Amino acid sequence: MARMEAAVGRRFIAEIKAGERIEDEVFLIRSKDLRTTTTGGLYIHAVLIDKTGQLVARAWQASDEMFQGMPEGGFLRFKGRAENYKGNLQFIIDAMRPADPGSYDFADFLPTTRGDMEAMWKRLVEILRQIKHPQLAALVGEFLNDKELMGRFRKAPAAAAMHHAYIGGLLEHTVSVLEVALRIVPQYPKLNLDLMLAGLFLHDIAKSTELSFETAIGYTDEGQLLGHITLAAIWIDKKADLVGSKLGKPFDSELKWVLQHIVLAHHGQYLFGSPKLPAVPEAIAVHYIDNLDAKLSMFFSEMENDRDPQSRWTNYNRALETKVYKPDVMGARG
Amino acid sequence: MARMEAAVGRRFIAEIKAGERIEDEVFLIRSKDLRTTTTGGLYIHAVLIDKTGQLVARAWQASDEMFQGMPEGGFLRFKGRAENYKGNLQFIIDAMRPADPGSYDFADFLPTTRGDMEAMWKRLVEILRQIKHPQLAALVGEFLNDKELMGRFRKAPAAAAMHHAYIGGLLEHTVSVLEVALRIVPQYPKLNLDLMLAGLFLHDIAKSTELSFETAIGYTDEGQLLGHITLAAIWIDKKADLVGSKLGKPFDSELKWVLQHIVLAHHGQYLFGSPKLPAVPEAIAVHYIDNLDAKLSMFFSEMENDRDPQSRWTNYNRALETKVYKPDVMGARG
Amino acid sequence: MARMEAAVGRRFIAEIKAGERIEDEVFLIRSKDLRTTTTGGLYIHAVLIDKTGQLVARAWQASDEMFQGMPEGGFLRFKGRAENYKGNLQFIIDAMRPADPGSYDFADFLPTTRGDMEAMWKRLVEILRQIKHPQLAALVGEFLNDKELMGRFRKAPAAAAMHHAYIGGLLEHTVSVLEVALRIVPQYPKLNLDLMLAGLFLHDIAKSTELSFETAIGYTDEGQLLGHITLAAIWIDKKADLVGSKLGKPFDSELKWVLQHIVLAHHGQYLFGSPKLPAVPEAIAVHYIDNLDAKLSMFFSEMENDRDPQSRWTNYNRALETKVYKPDVMGARG
Amino acid sequence: MARMEAAVGRRFIAEIKAGERIEDEVFLIRSKDLRTTTTGGLYIHAVLIDKTGQLVARAWQASDEMFQGMPEGGFLRFKGRAENYKGNLQFIIDAMRPADPGSYDFADFLPTTRGDMEAMWKRLVEILRQIKHPQLAALVGEFLNDKELMGRFRKAPAAAAMHHAYIGGLLEHTVSVLEVALRIVPQYPKLNLDLMLAGLFLHDIAKSTELSFETAIGYTDEGQLLGHITLAAIWIDKKADLVGSKLGKPFDSELKWVLQHIVLAHHGQYLFGSPKLPAVPEAIAVHYIDNLDAKLSMFFSEMENDRDPQSRWTNYNRALETKVYKPDVMGARG
Amino acid sequence: MARMEAAVGRRFIAEIKAGERIEDEVFLIRSKDLRTTTTGGLYIHAVLIDKTGQLVARAWQASDEMFQGMPEGGFLRFKGRAENYKGNLQFIIDAMRPADPGSYDFADFLPTTRGDMEAMWKRLVEILRQIKHPQLAALVGEFLNDKELMGRFRKAPAAAAMHHAYIGGLLEHTVSVLEVALRIVPQYPKLNLDLMLAGLFLHDIAKSTELSFETAIGYTDEGQLLGHITLAAIWIDKKADLVGSKLGKPFDSELKWVLQHIVLAHHGQYLFGSPKLPAVPEAIAVHYIDNLDAKLSMFFSEMENDRDPQSRWTNYNRALETKVYKPDVMGARG
Amino acid sequence: MARMEAAVGRRFIAEIKAGERIEDEVFLIRSKDLRTTTTGGLYIHAVLIDKTGQLVARAWQASDEMFQGMPEGGFLRFKGRAENYKGNLQFIIDAMRPADPGSYDFADFLPTTRGDMEAMWKRLVEILRQIKHPQLAALVGEFLNDKELMGRFRKAPAAAAMHHAYIGGLLEHTVSVLEVALRIVPQYPKLNLDLMLAGLFLHDIAKSTELSFETAIGYTDEGQLLGHITLAAIWIDKKADLVGSKLGKPFDSELKWVLQHIVLAHHGQYLFGSPKLPAVPEAIAVHYIDNLDAKLSMFFSEMENDRDPQSRWTNYNRALETKVYKPDVMGARG
Repeated sequence: MARMEAAVGRRFIAEIKAGERIEDEVFLIRSKDLRTTTTGGLYIHAVLIDKTGQLVARAWQASDEMFQGMPEGGFLRFKGRAENYKGNLQFIIDAMRPADPGSYDFADFLPTTRGDMEAMWKRLVEILRQIKHPQLAALVGEFLNDKELMGRFRKAPAAAAMHHAYIGGLLEHTVSVLEVALRIVPQYPKLNLDLMLAGLFLHDIAKSTELSFETAIGYTDEGQLLGHITLAAIWIDKKADLVGSKLGKPFDSELKWVLQHIVLAHHGQYLFGSPKLPAVPEAIAVHYIDNLDAKLSMFFSEMENDRDPQSRWTNYNRALETKVYKPDVMGARG
Repeated sequence: MARMEAAVGRRFIAEIKAGERIEDEVFLIRSKDLRTTTTGGLYIHAVLIDKTGQLVARAWQASDEMFQGMPEGGFLRFKGRAENYKGNLQFIIDAMRPADPGSYDFADFLPTTRGDMEAMWKRLVEILRQIKHPQLAALVGEFLNDKELMGRFRKAPAAAAMHHAYIGGLLEHTVSVLEVALRIVPQYPKLNLDLMLAGLFLHDIAKSTELSFETAIGYTDEGQLLGHITLAAIWIDKKADLVGSKLGKPFDSELKWVLQHIVLAHHGQYLFGSPKLPAVPEAIAVHYIDNLDAKLSMFFSEMENDRDPQSRWTNYNRALETKVYKPDVMGARG
Repeated sequence: MARMEAAVGRRFIAEIKAGERIEDEVFLIRSKDLRTTTTGGLYIHAVLIDKTGQLVARAWQASDEMFQGMPEGGFLRFKGRAENYKGNLQFIIDAMRPADPGSYDFADFLPTTRGDMEAMWKRLVEILRQIKHPQLAALVGEFLNDKELMGRFRKAPAAAAMHHAYIGGLLEHTVSVLEVALRIVPQYPKLNLDLMLAGLFLHDIAKSTELSFETAIGYTDEGQLLGHITLAAIWIDKKADLVGSKLGKPFDSELKWVLQHIVLAHHGQYLFGSPKLPAVPEAIAVHYIDNLDAKLSMFFSEMENDRDPQSRWTNYNRALETKVYKPDVMGARG
Repeated sequence: MARMEAAVGRRFIAEIKAGERIEDEVFLIRSKDLRTTTTGGLYIHAVLIDKTGQLVARAWQASDEMFQGMPEGGFLRFKGRAENYKGNLQFIIDAMRPADPGSYDFADFLPTTRGDMEAMWKRLVEILRQIKHPQLAALVGEFLNDKELMGRFRKAPAAAAMHHAYIGGLLEHTVSVLEVALRIVPQYPKLNLDLMLAGLFLHDIAKSTELSFETAIGYTDEGQLLGHITLAAIWIDKKADLVGSKLGKPFDSELKWVLQHIVLAHHGQYLFGSPKLPAVPEAIAVHYIDNLDAKLSMFFSEMENDRDPQSRWTNYNRALETKVYKPDVMGARG
Repeated sequence: MARMEAAVGRRFIAEIKAGERIEDEVFLIRSKDLRTTTTGGLYIHAVLIDKTGQLVARAWQASDEMFQGMPEGGFLRFKGRAENYKGNLQFIIDAMRPADPGSYDFADFLPTTRGDMEAMWKRLVEILRQIKHPQLAALVGEFLNDKELMGRFRKAPAAAAMHHAYIGGLLEHTVSVLEVALRIVPQYPKLNLDLMLAGLFLHDIAKSTELSFETAIGYTDEGQLLGHITLAAIWIDKKADLVGSKLGKPFDSELKWVLQHIVLAHHGQYLFGSPKLPAVPEAIAVHYIDNLDAKLSMFFSEMENDRDPQSRWTNYNRALETKVYKPDVMGARG
Repeated sequence: MARMEAAVGRRFIAEIKAGERIEDEVFLIRSKDLRTTTTGGLYIHAVLIDKTGQLVARAWQASDEMFQGMPEGGFLRFKGRAENYKGNLQFIIDAMRPADPGSYDFADFLPTTRGDMEAMWKRLVEILRQIKHPQLAALVGEFLNDKELMGRFRKAPAAAAMHHAYIGGLLEHTVSVLEVALRIVPQYPKLNLDLMLAGLFLHDIAKSTELSFETAIGYTDEGQLLGHITLAAIWIDKKADLVGSKLGKPFDSELKWVLQHIVLAHHGQYLFGSPKLPAVPEAIAVHYIDNLDAKLSMFFSEMENDRDPQSRWTNYNRALETKVYKPDVMGARG
């Protein structure tokens, strides 16, 4: 099976309709079960997913070999047909075969930002070019020129759950807070824009290492043991050394400390994992802008993803400690 | 003594220099003490204040009558001379006499915003005129047209201590958060600008009643018993009734509830006196914008008011739970 | 089907016995399921409820049409027979047909106080008539004479869960705390009885609007956005205005503030949604009397509703943060 | 100096007037200081107290011997005269001599309940005689008959500070909560009156050992190391053993545990030192009645002791987390 | 059935293999269910346990009588065969009959320490014999000589869940903390070894009464109402009285208080149920040694019991507030 | 003035006796005041300190020049005599002159460990040499060979206040916890000794940079902005890179992460500034050993430094949340 097929585009779960036949498509197997019919036969009950949703699937006349051949958390190519069952879609599996790793795109199986990732990246670079302070600009440049790091940064989610928990989410969140800073700083001229931009760029940058996001979003060992806050502080230290050796004079210590401090303090409270509380104005501003963007993202996604269009309240959201009220009293969200 | 003198302008404490004679000026008496000299005589030790600072004063050859005639927390006219004493200024009182209530301006004795209060008021009105939703515009209009309320609103401080704790502080804080909303909402088009503006205008409006600010900033009985959050919710209810009777149809209930909810939830946490947590996106946005403005104001005033120009850290600030780091590592605050 | 049937009285679930035939009775359908028998046929599995309990029901030889015709959360008339199945009662449905809305009483499907609601209402009025202070008596009278409000007040539960969570619960709880006040105030003569009675009458009055209790107990939008504490403060303000205009002189401000303060502070802590902490003796007394009554109600209902008569401890109760010990060591609860 | 003098009655500090001579009176010396006059001589500055207040005293022409002879925290007999000094009373010491321990009453130097301690004791016994359950009555009897313990119980304060912090305060508080129980239990017939009475009698009984109250109110070592909650649990265990051996059959274990549990849980929360949370209805009732009485006592004493009759609010009270509003809006406290 | 069989040893669930026949073995019935086969017959589905694990069991051609005869939470003798079913072991019941109480050992059905309980007991006694202070040695001796108490102490778990939650766990934990004290005290010579040993021996001793551990680990009524902390304080009081009467002079009060204080304070915080915070050095040392041992035990058991050998992190542990990282980066746990 | 004088040794404040003459000694001037005598002359009142205590000093016939010449927080050489004044020592200044910076030792003016700093350092190295794991030994070696860092490490206090707040305190605390680990690990063989030793050596190492301790103990800017926890994590990263480049292969990542994790988690709770909670057994062990040593140090120093030998309790200690009970009930602290 050639790569060309991917170019044609896959049939996403959200698009499949009852009565439709699927000749050959890759799905991620979230779970599987070998069950007995009322007449004594065996059948497989499975849940298949891609980034657009999930599909209950059944394979009749199953055998233990078939069952063993299905990798939970892995990929297979499926042939079959979609039916309606009690108002929900059900997929009847006719055949399964291995999926060649090169023949599908992992990104199809993870939720992804709706934003244009290339455009967001360009905007990020454009904004960061506005930094005028030579040392700070050089430091930010060290990060931007770190191909391997930026490769992960551009794909990473901004969280394992909670907000922007999708491929590209970290980039989207970072650009968004930078835009907010560009808008707000003129209102508070005592805030230093360069420091705000650098701090916001770096505040969550280590999420790119804290989180794993190859086949599912989770935590890496390094992330779980150290956390993105400490990782970013370490990285700034090392990049500052690099800048110093390139510029031929040590990076300004105080500037480095303040930048690291902004990152360390951006969760705003000890209880939320910040080892230091904001002690410079830019640190408190970064903290509130980060929170504003993350919480608004949670509100909007809670409202959009709510399953019951007729209810006026979403389900209880633990991070927000409340349900969200959905009626559009102002026509604002039309 | 004619009112004209006020036109000429008073001699403020911050301007008085050693060696200077004061022929006739009003001061607020913060505290007084009758003490004995080492030679057995009596003298009065007092602290005089106006909005620019405080002055230690002494009256030699004092009598108990003189002492009784000085109203603690009240005003007198003073004649005397300023001297240097151990590096600090000291005022030697030659004579004191009653100060006719009409002959001085209370505002000279309270700290006042450095902003132009008239210009800020115009800007406030200008911004609020952008509200397009007819009912909401009418409701905001009811508040703006309430002369007695707006009279207090324009003078009130935004807090008894903490941030913007000076005459005009509430107006300054309110205009500032409105400006931030104008800048930020375009970045989050799902937020309703009308609702943001109305919510930010009203979030602290009842500070004008919660606080007393005639001769000193404190709490009124009404404010201490009910709080500005509940007062604003009550006022919105009553103004909405007024709008309803003027428009000839009831004010939209849901819109009213959401607006009241934004006010009730703007402290963001139960522990900070909000009886409800933010349940609409505009409520969380109002909460963070309010906090951003208040906390930045605290940072900047902490840095400006720090007494020791050589120290690199301010004193510990209880509300911020930290000292503030003052060095201008970026030349940002030059 | 005539209303007369209701007069004859319904057959409540708690009274139904195995072997009994039900010719025609209305039940609320909590949930329904279309299932397959081991022989391939379809059957419906449903749960029917009224205020006395719930009943598992089955309809054999079911069709999809029958299934679609059952409104989840709605009402139908049922014909069938009760059987024993594995020790539990099971209802076999023979026929179902629509239930004319006028032909049954919603109250039969919601848990209701065991108290005599009419007698409790009379006692409430009797107690409140003891208020001697003219303005306070007039204010309480405004509430009592508000037919629409009292209509809801007399039916409302006192909570969505936790304590007195049944029709008439608010009335029952209110009368109970008034009785306690009548008993306790003579022990503390510095407490003002009028203020205690008015405060206790009004402390939860807005539960009548905060909660919905037509077909199930839940929260209204207004209740969830504003809360009963703020609503009551608003109502007192408006009723005081009414009293003022009727009496021809403004309602005493301080008295109004103190009454509103008692309501605002009755949860006793910020964390429990009170925006103010008790600052007058009557406020702290209202707080403790309210809590005493609510918590005792929780203890007794936890003990009575415990399913396992042989266990010595009830299940863990989250609000009480403990299990409850049931043995009657004193013969007290015999 | 004979005891008879005490019969005549002492001259209390609150009664002393300027110009008055004191021929021979005992005072407790709170603090003393040896100072130098401006002419180089020595004088003693001391603060003398009794239960009605304190008095600044001076002894001119002092010597080091005189100074050494004044026991800080101890008693002396003083001769001298009262003068007015800067609006305050000042006592000029003419002579001092030792105070024979038998010649004065410690109680004159400690604040004491205004209640009639003998009458309160009789009322306590009268109430506790109502306990009908034989074992419980016997147990309570063991406590009442413990002369040494009851001797301390009748004199002890109910707290070191906070509420009822005066001689007889524990008895006063205990009788008060028992009275409340007698009034409330009929409203909640499921509560066992015997258990309520015994629990309330014993809940703070070990304050009599936790606190020291000979010459000042403080904590004993035993009290500070173990606390009154644990001490009472131990005492109940030992008294129950005594009852068992007297009655010839073991005290009912479950009854003992429940009684001890009520005592252990009466602070209501772990944070306030209760090792167990209320798990029987009587425990929660004891908790709230105890709190109601203690908090009301704090409110009333805060209002009565407030020094500034013109202020409308008392000082901030840390235990209440608020100032108290003093105006008598209802004429309730006239 | 003779006791001798026990000598031969039971067949533990962890040892049973597919295909194996069980002729006659006792199992504890955790749960049972009467179900219908697809052909309409009845069968019993049950879960059988012993201390080594659990076993799903089925009895075909079941009757209601058979079902009623199975005591949930009780014991029966089973005959049958083990089969493989979908990768798991399944036990097919051929016959069941009553199990004579004397014919099996309860301990076989509860998880038990892997340590040698007899050796641990000897070590405990050996360590406690090092106490030199006569009164303290006598007091500890009273506990050691209390046969009935020591009988329970030697079998009790150290907790109902969390750590050392198995038969013998209390003994194991106690010996372990005593060993740590022997090692650490020489490093801190100001700590008194006798007091440390006595305090550690007694800190959890009342777990032997707080917990029930006959057929399952749970709480006794006494334990739930009073807690092991208060119980131990009571026991020390009574044993000290005994020592006093045996030695003919009262037990030293201060020593008793300090020992009781160490027990009361050993949870270290009010929130964890300690009514007093550590106020002597030995109390803080006992607190940390107790925690060190308990938490290490939790870490090691979390790592050992983790079901997925390939995962690098265990499941989230609520007491530790984290997952545990399993990789052996040092070869330490090889 | 030659350095030789230092060899002879200074006269410490704690050793000075009334009547003694001081010919030439350096003191640190904590505070100074220019005052007027009763006869109108000027005199200087100053407080002089060294590490052993403080001394009130007076210079009669003072001039403003003399006063200006005294650097607050700086050093001078003093000539004068010690007198008794009201029971306290008073130093009468006869002459003052500048103190050549090289002529005295800063360490004489800061409190210093009583331990032998050289011996402690040797013991530290000796213990750390026991680390067998090659990479870990190399990493620890990098730290030990960092002369500049070790220079600070050997002098630093372990805290600004609280525990070991004196020169050499960090070294003393570090050696002490290492000794505890050597004693405890054999009791818990699953703990890896190498990892424990490295973790304990590094847990507070950055206190050497977080704190300033030249003329007084305080915080550096770097310390206040970043904290010793983050600094140590950064240093480990950099030293591991060094080891990697020296050994010619990258330092094992997982080992590095675990070591950094132990440092990050050693405060045990978010609230105490740890951005991660202990997730490996060695991390929890390091946390408790650190706490045990720090808290015991606080207990012992609280008891030793208590000013009132007759009181049985020390003052309230905020970190311990209690007073400390001083009586030596066991003769343990003799």
